[in-house]
Amino acid sequence: MSAERTRLVPIGVVASPLTDPASAPKQGFEGAPEAWLVLEPGVLEALDGLRPGDRIVVLTWLHRARRDVLRVHPRDDAAAPLRGVFGTRSADRPNPIGLHEVEIVALEGRRVRVRDLEAVDGTPVLDLKPVLGSGGS
Amino acid sequence: MSAERTRLVPIGVVASPLTDPASAPKQGFEGAPEAWLVLEPGVLEALDGLRPGDRIVVLTWLHRARRDVLRVHPRDDAAAPLRGVFGTRSADRPNPIGLHEVEIVALEGRRVRVRDLEAVDGTPVLDLKPVLGSGGS
Repeated sequence: MSAERTRLVPIGVVASPLTDPASAPKQGFEGAPEAWLVLEPGVLEALDGLRPGDRIVVLTWLHRARRDVLRVHPRDDAAAPLRGVFGTRSADRPNPIGLHEVEIVALEGRRVRVRDLEAVDGTPVLDLKPVLGSGGS
Repeated sequence: MSAERTRLVPIGVVASPLTDPASAPKQGFEGAPEAWLVLEPGVLEALDGLRPGDRIVVLTWLHRARRDVLRVHPRDDAAAPLRGVFGTRSADRPNPIGLHEVEIVALEGRRVRVRDLEAVDGTPVLDLKPVLGSGGS
């Protein structure tokens, strides 16, 4: 892979009431709030066909994560044995890409409202994909 | 995001009998073969705790994809209406990150054998995560 090909270009950013990673839910289904995905004007065509009620996977870049961590105590529980990050959903990992399954609540121009997103305010968004078996193709 | 922080560093590469994206299954459950993930020696610690039978999400960099495509005919069916790529699983998209749910068949040193991977031989691997509700944490 050339450097040019492996450079991520954010397609947008998360706007959320969550600002502190330490106090944010670890998973969306653990009480995360609604949030906006504010997309770059240049990618809006890529939203064609998405509708409220659709379930999508949001990929984010967890910009506050550490990339040099290979083992963690799962769920930040110091009593839990260390485990390799590929067996956990820790944000700290060589390529800190976040994977969030959410439901679209509303689409307003370049803003997509979603339910149950645990990513904090300001998190760059990399991609949206349909959840398979949920009307996507 | 600084350029340094957004540069992806592959953690490994796919070794698969699939070599032609055009003839590969579109999804793993559509008849994809077993394949190896050959990991970089520097990340092996991050595998600690993963076992055969675990279901994981493999994130890949779809290095042959086009990044300037925003709308496609779903499933390459020219008769299907154009749709935004964020509503499809098309490889072509601004950040061509592949998302593959697979089962681990075997772990042998730096090689992880997985079932049902539709990514072609030579595809860079970015991350592994447990499928939630499948024994991960």
